[in-house]
Amino acid sequence: MTPNRSIYVLNGPNLNLLGIREPEIYGRDTLSDIEAACRAAAKPHRLDIDFRQSNSESLMIDWIQEARERAAGVIINAAALSFTSIGILDALQMCTAPIIEVHLSNIHRRESFRHHSYVSRAATGVICGLGAHGYVLAVLRLAELLRR
Amino acid sequence: MTPNRSIYVLNGPNLNLLGIREPEIYGRDTLSDIEAACRAAAKPHRLDIDFRQSNSESLMIDWIQEARERAAGVIINAAALSFTSIGILDALQMCTAPIIEVHLSNIHRRESFRHHSYVSRAATGVICGLGAHGYVLAVLRLAELLRR
Amino acid sequence: MTPNRSIYVLNGPNLNLLGIREPEIYGRDTLSDIEAACRAAAKPHRLDIDFRQSNSESLMIDWIQEARERAAGVIINAAALSFTSIGILDALQMCTAPIIEVHLSNIHRRESFRHHSYVSRAATGVICGLGAHGYVLAVLRLAELLRR
Amino acid sequence: MTPNRSIYVLNGPNLNLLGIREPEIYGRDTLSDIEAACRAAAKPHRLDIDFRQSNSESLMIDWIQEARERAAGVIINAAALSFTSIGILDALQMCTAPIIEVHLSNIHRRESFRHHSYVSRAATGVICGLGAHGYVLAVLRLAELLRR
Amino acid sequence: MTPNRSIYVLNGPNLNLLGIREPEIYGRDTLSDIEAACRAAAKPHRLDIDFRQSNSESLMIDWIQEARERAAGVIINAAALSFTSIGILDALQMCTAPIIEVHLSNIHRRESFRHHSYVSRAATGVICGLGAHGYVLAVLRLAELLRR
Amino acid sequence: MTPNRSIYVLNGPNLNLLGIREPEIYGRDTLSDIEAACRAAAKPHRLDIDFRQSNSESLMIDWIQEARERAAGVIINAAALSFTSIGILDALQMCTAPIIEVHLSNIHRRESFRHHSYVSRAATGVICGLGAHGYVLAVLRLAELLRR
Amino acid sequence: MTPNRSIYVLNGPNLNLLGIREPEIYGRDTLSDIEAACRAAAKPHRLDIDFRQSNSESLMIDWIQEARERAAGVIINAAALSFTSIGILDALQMCTAPIIEVHLSNIHRRESFRHHSYVSRAATGVICGLGAHGYVLAVLRLAELLRR
Amino acid sequence: MTPNRSIYVLNGPNLNLLGIREPEIYGRDTLSDIEAACRAAAKPHRLDIDFRQSNSESLMIDWIQEARERAAGVIINAAALSFTSIGILDALQMCTAPIIEVHLSNIHRRESFRHHSYVSRAATGVICGLGAHGYVLAVLRLAELLRR
Amino acid sequence: MTPNRSIYVLNGPNLNLLGIREPEIYGRDTLSDIEAACRAAAKPHRLDIDFRQSNSESLMIDWIQEARERAAGVIINAAALSFTSIGILDALQMCTAPIIEVHLSNIHRRESFRHHSYVSRAATGVICGLGAHGYVLAVLRLAELLRR
Amino acid sequence: MTPNRSIYVLNGPNLNLLGIREPEIYGRDTLSDIEAACRAAAKPHRLDIDFRQSNSESLMIDWIQEARERAAGVIINAAALSFTSIGILDALQMCTAPIIEVHLSNIHRRESFRHHSYVSRAATGVICGLGAHGYVLAVLRLAELLRR
Amino acid sequence: MTPNRSIYVLNGPNLNLLGIREPEIYGRDTLSDIEAACRAAAKPHRLDIDFRQSNSESLMIDWIQEARERAAGVIINAAALSFTSIGILDALQMCTAPIIEVHLSNIHRRESFRHHSYVSRAATGVICGLGAHGYVLAVLRLAELLRR
Amino acid sequence: MTPNRSIYVLNGPNLNLLGIREPEIYGRDTLSDIEAACRAAAKPHRLDIDFRQSNSESLMIDWIQEARERAAGVIINAAALSFTSIGILDALQMCTAPIIEVHLSNIHRRESFRHHSYVSRAATGVICGLGAHGYVLAVLRLAELLRR
Repeated sequence: MTPNRSIYVLNGPNLNLLGIREPEIYGRDTLSDIEAACRAAAKPHRLDIDFRQSNSESLMIDWIQEARERAAGVIINAAALSFTSIGILDALQMCTAPIIEVHLSNIHRRESFRHHSYVSRAATGVICGLGAHGYVLAVLRLAELLRR
Repeated sequence: MTPNRSIYVLNGPNLNLLGIREPEIYGRDTLSDIEAACRAAAKPHRLDIDFRQSNSESLMIDWIQEARERAAGVIINAAALSFTSIGILDALQMCTAPIIEVHLSNIHRRESFRHHSYVSRAATGVICGLGAHGYVLAVLRLAELLRR
Repeated sequence: MTPNRSIYVLNGPNLNLLGIREPEIYGRDTLSDIEAACRAAAKPHRLDIDFRQSNSESLMIDWIQEARERAAGVIINAAALSFTSIGILDALQMCTAPIIEVHLSNIHRRESFRHHSYVSRAATGVICGLGAHGYVLAVLRLAELLRR
Repeated sequence: MTPNRSIYVLNGPNLNLLGIREPEIYGRDTLSDIEAACRAAAKPHRLDIDFRQSNSESLMIDWIQEARERAAGVIINAAALSFTSIGILDALQMCTAPIIEVHLSNIHRRESFRHHSYVSRAATGVICGLGAHGYVLAVLRLAELLRR
Repeated sequence: MTPNRSIYVLNGPNLNLLGIREPEIYGRDTLSDIEAACRAAAKPHRLDIDFRQSNSESLMIDWIQEARERAAGVIINAAALSFTSIGILDALQMCTAPIIEVHLSNIHRRESFRHHSYVSRAATGVICGLGAHGYVLAVLRLAELLRR
Repeated sequence: MTPNRSIYVLNGPNLNLLGIREPEIYGRDTLSDIEAACRAAAKPHRLDIDFRQSNSESLMIDWIQEARERAAGVIINAAALSFTSIGILDALQMCTAPIIEVHLSNIHRRESFRHHSYVSRAATGVICGLGAHGYVLAVLRLAELLRR
Repeated sequence: MTPNRSIYVLNGPNLNLLGIREPEIYGRDTLSDIEAACRAAAKPHRLDIDFRQSNSESLMIDWIQEARERAAGVIINAAALSFTSIGILDALQMCTAPIIEVHLSNIHRRESFRHHSYVSRAATGVICGLGAHGYVLAVLRLAELLRR
Repeated sequence: MTPNRSIYVLNGPNLNLLGIREPEIYGRDTLSDIEAACRAAAKPHRLDIDFRQSNSESLMIDWIQEARERAAGVIINAAALSFTSIGILDALQMCTAPIIEVHLSNIHRRESFRHHSYVSRAATGVICGLGAHGYVLAVLRLAELLRR
Repeated sequence: MTPNRSIYVLNGPNLNLLGIREPEIYGRDTLSDIEAACRAAAKPHRLDIDFRQSNSESLMIDWIQEARERAAGVIINAAALSFTSIGILDALQMCTAPIIEVHLSNIHRRESFRHHSYVSRAATGVICGLGAHGYVLAVLRLAELLRR
Repeated sequence: MTPNRSIYVLNGPNLNLLGIREPEIYGRDTLSDIEAACRAAAKPHRLDIDFRQSNSESLMIDWIQEARERAAGVIINAAALSFTSIGILDALQMCTAPIIEVHLSNIHRRESFRHHSYVSRAATGVICGLGAHGYVLAVLRLAELLRR
Repeated sequence: MTPNRSIYVLNGPNLNLLGIREPEIYGRDTLSDIEAACRAAAKPHRLDIDFRQSNSESLMIDWIQEARERAAGVIINAAALSFTSIGILDALQMCTAPIIEVHLSNIHRRESFRHHSYVSRAATGVICGLGAHGYVLAVLRLAELLRR
Repeated sequence: MTPNRSIYVLNGPNLNLLGIREPEIYGRDTLSDIEAACRAAAKPHRLDIDFRQSNSESLMIDWIQEARERAAGVIINAAALSFTSIGILDALQMCTAPIIEVHLSNIHRRESFRHHSYVSRAATGVICGLGAHGYVLAVLRLAELLRR
């Protein structure tokens, strides 16, 4: 499999606690469950999943810079950083590969400071409120885009 | 097939011109193409698609009221009405079935008056910027939810 | 009974579902119950009730234009349209008969986008949060005004 | 008549000058006229009216605290204090009896600083723009609520 | 006369009452008077006038979609809908023919909610405050543009 | 020709460069072309055109004060000063003759600081986005008003 | 001296501490000094000074209501209440005598919450930043107005 | 014990109902309980507690003016008045003794109109959300400051 | 008389038309009347009046710069420029002599864009709504200040 | 001592320079002084202090996640991050132990961008403006809460 | 030296008083000092300096229009006009030569109405807070740009 | 060369990709090119350049704290962090050496969220829109300041 078949799935702060933290909002799937589901969805399309999580904005930026050179597509759930990090936006805007932003919950039904994501300004598309399944659909969308 | 296997796909103003109107934003798929894609995606899940379009807010409300009784799920692209119609919001809030909001373009990258959708307040989840493919993923999501 | 003894009671979007929709907010009375209560209240004052509901803004405007010529008073619950329709405001401002705006719930305790009603700018008075009984009191108020 | 048949009717600053002050806005009824009308309306329902006026916020708060223990219902026209007194709001929120807010004029057609009433946040319902008659309708509403 | 010599003149809510409604603001001309004046102005330029009025947003959208295929130019007074309808804006943005927005009164001297017209975002030019004569000047402007 | 047949056409800052400056926005007509067109349009109505341009706010105010005494009508394109000069507004409000505001481009489609013109508060009517032709139509409108 | 030669000079919260409190802002004159200066200024005009101070909004309202019947003019420095009391505004609006608002300091150079005085909405004129002398000038102004 | 060992503890509107009013927010301690706790905390530091409550803004101001002369420190919970009274702010700003503002609940987690306290602008420090214990800690802090 | 006995009285745009323009707002005094009144008021205090008017911001700035060197005090009614000219503010801030801002009308009761004067930020004091008499009182105030 | 007797005291950016940086605002205590004071205060209550400082948001998040499992209570002074980090808010919201937010200075008297702390949304209580002593009081409060 | 080696250095209102006015903000250099420094910096690059100052917006616009034809580059310190003059912006936008905006002080640390410069929208680059030296660096930058 | 001859040049997120990322905005110079240019500019002034880049806010803060002790001057391009990091502002405010903020592009012509830099609040001066050359000019400015 060549590098340009690689999908970077980047997860931001506190997502490492998924399945534990407020399950009534985020569901009971852990991040490992989501990674497995992504791989399962990617396999028939011969896509490789590079799945990462960090609480650090700078590490997220490093990874996006890396994705800029190596990834065929990016799935990003920047969590809390979505709403405050212009640095992540700048990094994403340097990528030419398609970018799908994912949020587990419907951010538009939460506090107003979660209504405007900087990531959305750079994203090709946005999926929110579909729970862990949103990642799978994002993989399908990238597969569709890469098929063209 | 029982009525509760029915998915209502409701499309708002000007979507009848899809494929003609500003294709660089909305893509070249026509609404018929999208309907066909939805049916294809629904079939393996034994879901029925009831696909409609209207330029009229009141007809949209009538259909949502109808969906409230007959649909297992709702996919709605209220287009321009998303941003102004409290009546559609009120109607959607009476539905207990899951609701997926779809926008062809990434509304967060367009004019600021398209950034806040009333529909999002009632939706289970939101998909935007994935083009016509967003409808297909919405069907998959509803299938997933109904499987549980 | 002459036409100028007629009270138009105009109801906006989704009120046809009254008694079903979120009863903890709107109460369990149906629109038919309210119509009956209005007639009962109007009878001793020899007022006639013309009771209507529509999900359509344009039909609401048509009715207000009709009321302009035929009604001795108007009771209007424009529901969701109260907060967005300048067309209804314009139509009401052409009426010389007294206008009582009614809302079943106390709109000031709900979402902020329900705090400013265009209808209030044209209304003689406003009653909200008194449930279905608000309509009855509006009839009494119009009777009082017409008695003068 | 037991204490819980008592309705407190509380009037705020400058209402003592009613009938004198800007009659084109507030009408020609004096506060005594309104008190008499309230008593007349309350009598058939065997309700007692405790009618008071003060220019003092603290006295208004004292009275609401008293009403909390002794009143079956509260009618309040806090006048200018409606728009500025969080203390009155706090006191009202401690009452479990129903509260009807009354304004003689339609405050929504006046200066913008009269559009948001703190009292409305604690009130069961609101009546405005019906002149002195609004008090009578408020009595009827409380009678109706207490009948249940 | 070929279809592309046709000018659509589209009038929004409550304009059917022109000449009756608040003549001190809108003047005493009726909509029929305006239609006649438009025809008279168009005739020397061999332009055909298709003159319509509706209280319905959806009908307005339908007509604009029709104009998109059949009209050489559009004159639109969307009245109250000018300030709230994104759907009309979207429909107008699909037209390639020149669009002149007309308002009878000078909307900039009225309530602030009439200061921002969505129609202006799609219009080639705007004429307001010239009364019924504004329509005639709009016809002349379109004739000028089509002459080129 | 008596003085009261005189139309003052007042042009603000940078309009002396018309035809040179950003022709894709303002067109290729020079200010002399516009003056000639105004004179041609005024002639059949026996109106005299007094055509001036200045980069100076105070000179504009002087001219408006002069027009107050000598002009039958005013056409004003205050350009950049439209959006900032309260002094020009004050001067215009002292005129009793009709005032037509003209802008070459559709200011509502440009930067937000060009959306609110102080001149519009004093103008009888506004024409924008019709290019140099807007001046001609303004002359016609004044001729029409003066005919009455 | 008849009652209608009486000038009420009403002083709001904390002004009793004048001369002590932040003298660099308010100067070193005490309230007694100001009262004496007012009397001296009023005497040649045969005006009587009724000079009062209170920390209480309700007492201020009572006094204004009293002034409504007895005063030829009102000078009011409502201090902190200027910026928050709609009740004082309402009371002042019932007075027909001229009202001069006085502030010792230039409120426009202080915190932004001191920039908008409700009292100014009812005042004939406003004097601020002239220190204790402002009261004297207010007396002179009332004398001038009463001379007419 | 000399006067300058006295701590004024000033409590604003509705705090007299503490322990009764919404105990889930404010806890079950009564104001007497808090007074006792303050005294207990003050005793080892040989500080005297002067504990008061009022629903009246003007009385609060009077007390603060008194504290200005007699107190070694002030603890103030102005309750609802915290958010609206500039007069209390002005009075506090005349005190040179340290001032600790206390709120029983965490006001930053409540309605937005409780997020900005005028008292905070004059306070040395602020304690909120620590329940009745906040008063005790405020006493300890003042003791600490007075020890220096 | 030495130069430092000179008071500059500077008047901004359109004040040359005083007595003509909207007399119901500005009164019937002309600027000459005001100049005469200023001289009369200044004489007993042996102050010289240098009275000027201009429609030009730059001339106003030149004069203020001149006053900076030659005037004992400045009275300024910058009219429309009060609300927009930062240049006048900057020039005034270079003056060390006292500055009294005067407005004929009570600007706080007019349009909101006349509520914030840049001049007030540099002024020692402000007098508004006292008509032409305001200038006289400003002279008296400067005399008082210079006496010290 | 069991782990659940541990109090995490977490300090954000630049607090390592405490005692050096702007001592007129933050006091002269160093972070070591504060740590010692916390330990002294905790000891009688048999609480353990885990005291840390970082300039890094991600390290702060890591520590809060750790505290979620190991701490009986959290004291947090997130310094500059208080006002911008949604990630820290999210992490804190996962903790069930009580959280006391501390700021050395009274943030409400500083720049407006320091007035709204995200941390406050998750905190049990807030102490600010009490200097280094605020930490000690926070320890006492946690001891009090843990005693129950 | 050909005309296109000419740099226009344009200075706005009150800069003629440089070195006198608030030297703690603007420094002690006079405008002549700055002119000399500019010439010295320009000489090695064989650039000519055309150095001007005016208090007049219209003269500034005239000069920019002149620069449009004759200058190789523009350095502009529009002072107070930077923040209010759309006319200067319009004139600058017609220039094709590079434009460097200079402010002596760091405008971002001053009053908020000095934070947004219209000039910046047209400028190639901005230098502020570097005192008189900022002009020299602007000359160097233009020399660098013209070298290419 | 002594330590106090050292200039810290600190570069924020994504600047490592300079020359690659959106060259039409940022130019084609790489960060190495800029470093070399800085050294060249510093050399004649016997200044040492310490040139660093990081994507991490905390590392930036560490470096500023270090610069506080070791640098004679700071040049900082905090990139995306300029607009969001209060921590960097706090760190910079502890430095006594002069600070020059640099941005490659003219941030005032970009998205509105890039218009307000926290860094500007602490900076001595700001240079933006001069491309890589801005760094060189910043070095010259620091040399100039250190020469004094």
